[in-house]
Amino acid sequence: MANPSLLILAGDGIGPEVMAEVKKIIGWMGARRGVQFDVSEDLVGGAAYDAHGTPLTDATMARAQEVDAVLLGAVGGPKYDKLDFSVKPERGLLRLRKEMDLYSNLRPAQCFDALADFSSLKREVVAGLDIVIVRELTSGVYFGEPRGIFREGNERVGINTQRYTESEIARVAKSAFELARKRSNKVCSMEKANVMESGILWREVVQEVHDRDYPDVELSHMYADAGAMQLCRWPKQFDVIVTDNLFGDLLSDAAAMLTGSLGMLPSASLGAPMANGRPKALYEPVHGSAPDIAGQGKANPIACILSFAMALRYSFDLGAEATRVEKAVEKVLADGVRTADLMGPEGGTPVSTAQMGDAIVAAL
Amino acid sequence: MANPSLLILAGDGIGPEVMAEVKKIIGWMGARRGVQFDVSEDLVGGAAYDAHGTPLTDATMARAQEVDAVLLGAVGGPKYDKLDFSVKPERGLLRLRKEMDLYSNLRPAQCFDALADFSSLKREVVAGLDIVIVRELTSGVYFGEPRGIFREGNERVGINTQRYTESEIARVAKSAFELARKRSNKVCSMEKANVMESGILWREVVQEVHDRDYPDVELSHMYADAGAMQLCRWPKQFDVIVTDNLFGDLLSDAAAMLTGSLGMLPSASLGAPMANGRPKALYEPVHGSAPDIAGQGKANPIACILSFAMALRYSFDLGAEATRVEKAVEKVLADGVRTADLMGPEGGTPVSTAQMGDAIVAAL
Ligand SMILES: CC(C)[C@H](C(=O)O)[C@@H](O)C(=O)O
Ligand SMILES: CC(C)[C@H](C(=O)O)[C@@H](O)C(=O)O
Repeated sequence: MANPSLLILAGDGIGPEVMAEVKKIIGWMGARRGVQFDVSEDLVGGAAYDAHGTPLTDATMARAQEVDAVLLGAVGGPKYDKLDFSVKPERGLLRLRKEMDLYSNLRPAQCFDALADFSSLKREVVAGLDIVIVRELTSGVYFGEPRGIFREGNERVGINTQRYTESEIARVAKSAFELARKRSNKVCSMEKANVMESGILWREVVQEVHDRDYPDVELSHMYADAGAMQLCRWPKQFDVIVTDNLFGDLLSDAAAMLTGSLGMLPSASLGAPMANGRPKALYEPVHGSAPDIAGQGKANPIACILSFAMALRYSFDLGAEATRVEKAVEKVLADGVRTADLMGPEGGTPVSTAQMGDAIVAAL
Repeated sequence: MANPSLLILAGDGIGPEVMAEVKKIIGWMGARRGVQFDVSEDLVGGAAYDAHGTPLTDATMARAQEVDAVLLGAVGGPKYDKLDFSVKPERGLLRLRKEMDLYSNLRPAQCFDALADFSSLKREVVAGLDIVIVRELTSGVYFGEPRGIFREGNERVGINTQRYTESEIARVAKSAFELARKRSNKVCSMEKANVMESGILWREVVQEVHDRDYPDVELSHMYADAGAMQLCRWPKQFDVIVTDNLFGDLLSDAAAMLTGSLGMLPSASLGAPMANGRPKALYEPVHGSAPDIAGQGKANPIACILSFAMALRYSFDLGAEATRVEKAVEKVLADGVRTADLMGPEGGTPVSTAQMGDAIVAAL
């Protein structure tokens, strides 16, 4: 049987640097665990624009549809700020999400023990925190039509459309309930049903899916503004949060920052099962392309490495190998090995991106 | 000359309780400082619905348009959750904002010294924090058309429209720049220009207004997700933040919670100047109607009292009297007087809503 296939899209900024460390882990897995992948690489974002005048070529898009999983680094940078909206680096990532139909974006916000003092929040508020935000990723205001900047009388007007169908809401709700069953069996759904009709439909459909198929899961609803508050106040009250594309964007970034571990957090974007039973899948760190530190060997590769661990678990059913990678990361942190972003007052051994990757391989 | 007029809309939940304490302050101002108001009272939200079948009658709306300032308590509660969208308590508040055209909502996120340990964030992150979020309040996805739940083929679809005209953006930007000039002269504008065209227009217009009329103010732009992160990480980097209606809803709630002083934070919603030169204005606490503690004498009246102080300052040019109220609040807090929400591990004198109001009057 052919090896499972991985497409690596390292992207912009620190993307290529952190991905280089992931490749070391992939290499180790092949050499030492017999877990072989058929790896190909391509361009996305600003890097693709520079080479081809588009943030994602049709050929790359087609390849992404064929492979078993995509690993993405990060996209964007100030160099591309003035580009037309249609060819901005972000459009490459958004096209992947949309055309692969990756509707369920799992964003764990987990506080690593060795880093609990690192958060801007008090230790007791974040220590041991382990929640997952399930963000709808293929619809809502990110993709709704009409959209654009139009002329109206003697001024311009900017328009975007928030839009959710019942089936779009139902499928992401399902994935949140499924996930909750493997965890603490608790889902909180967030919207603005007090202000937006799309939020009313969201709340209704989530409740219906619950009552019909997941009555065993504890379900609550919260307005997204209250949700933002509660995440800051006492995040441990949550287990799984399910929310729409835009709220998910803000809430997951806030939650990630709370943990103090932004350079550590992976994500998985999953779609429907392919013919081989594996879900369409893209894995990427929650952090961005960090152009300010790109090319300096300062970036923390852990988020990207843990994204690969998520791929092992969710795409390849290699939970034990995923745990092996996660444990290696924990060990390295416990040993005080620290990239610049993790260097707190209590000190540690300062290392570069590549040294962190090497330390994790050594710990494997 | 007639006294300036105030319309009190206490609303639902803890609204009436906290407003009762504001009335004590108003009474004291009249008796002791010769600052007299012509006060009228009316219903809004669920209370108005219970009495009239609508969350805001036309008569109340007309009265709000005539007075010099509106003081609002809070609206909403679980009792009204099943009501049709068009008569929900929130619609009353939203109608006031829209018809009075209160486009500039000032939401200070301030950390009171006596409460710095109260935040879920570390003391050094929040102590001395004093930022203002200027939230656009009359447009965006809150009011854009088309909106509603429609049938499409064999399923329903929920739709809302994010919509901003150049002039809507320009006027709120102006108010943010004006405010910044009275503070640390720094504005950060937040949107999702990397994903939404309405965000692109927002960024462009804010920049234009800046370059044309406020080149002396330091202006930066940030994506709203990064903004949510940065608010959690190091909020003191900001002075004035200007953002749209929906982002402002989430970001200001998160910011308020960070201060640990949610029961303490006032807000002002300002519109264009009326014939008498005063801006159309509505003042309300940032917190909600807190139905879980309503009617128990547990609510903290300080946010509502400080909202009245904002009215003194912004509507009536009585900055010295506003400061007097603010100082009285600070003194009472420094003395350890605490409603339930402010009761931390370091103790203090536990008081009821009414006792807190009395203590502030005594300190005046
Ligand atoms: C880069 C950008 C398009 C993206 C988003 O807004 O979804 C990012 O913020 C994210 O959260 O993955
Ligand atoms: C009560 C509700 C309509 C309101 C809003 O969403 O604007 C509230 O959350 C606020 O922030 O003032």
